[in-house]
Amino acid sequence: MTNCELCDTTGGAVIWRDARCRVVQITEPGYPGFCRVIWNSHAAEMSDLPETDRVHCMNVVFAVERALRNTMAPAKINLATLGNMVAHVHWHVIPRFTDDPHFPQPVWGVRQREGAPVRAGTSSLAQSIRSELQTH
Amino acid sequence: MTNCELCDTTGGAVIWRDARCRVVQITEPGYPGFCRVIWNSHAAEMSDLPETDRVHCMNVVFAVERALRNTMAPAKINLATLGNMVAHVHWHVIPRFTDDPHFPQPVWGVRQREGAPVRAGTSSLAQSIRSELQTH
Repeated sequence: MTNCELCDTTGGAVIWRDARCRVVQITEPGYPGFCRVIWNSHAAEMSDLPETDRVHCMNVVFAVERALRNTMAPAKINLATLGNMVAHVHWHVIPRFTDDPHFPQPVWGVRQREGAPVRAGTSSLAQSIRSELQTH
Repeated sequence: MTNCELCDTTGGAVIWRDARCRVVQITEPGYPGFCRVIWNSHAAEMSDLPETDRVHCMNVVFAVERALRNTMAPAKINLATLGNMVAHVHWHVIPRFTDDPHFPQPVWGVRQREGAPVRAGTSSLAQSIRSELQTH
């Protein structure tokens, strides 16, 4: 055990992984399709990674973005790496819809409405992500 | 004029620009050093850009990250591209400090404290960003 939860746990349901990073799907009410790309080894900032690793990490993030667009057709994709609480590189890849709980605010902002709409495409998302990453 | 404010305006004080994107510094109370990397032409999502442009965009984002770390030594860097209100690719590159208004929450979250501390290094930030981008 370390003091880092992303070193000690997968951080979600693993959809895909390679030697350097993993894609997980998380359970966030109101946000089906919310994925994270988590670097496997401990690093706090993207600029702590060598350039080839940064490029690889972003290629995986953008592959997840493409899969989310292809399967769920969101109004917008939100990408963010914050790490203020868990300083281990992890990217939030979030499909946003005009009727989701916070739109057009960030998911960390003020809630705009109740409800958690069902989204088409979520059942094929994992396969689409694997397919995008295989193609790449 | 278009209907896009990042097509019609610079979006902040321009520190650096090339044919594809620009780095601007914005005035956000409590957040000295808050920069944005804005794609010059109109594109809504990173995956709308060709791969070479995506790589270039991220290289600029990571150069700004390095300059912020070198000049201001923040506790954490936050990177995000949201675009729910202005769907034109722009990256927020935000130096975070444990005593900033929202830490450890995202800057879009619940304010944790008052005050806007002065930060060392902000005066040399623009030069550091230009230097990082020249080196790269």
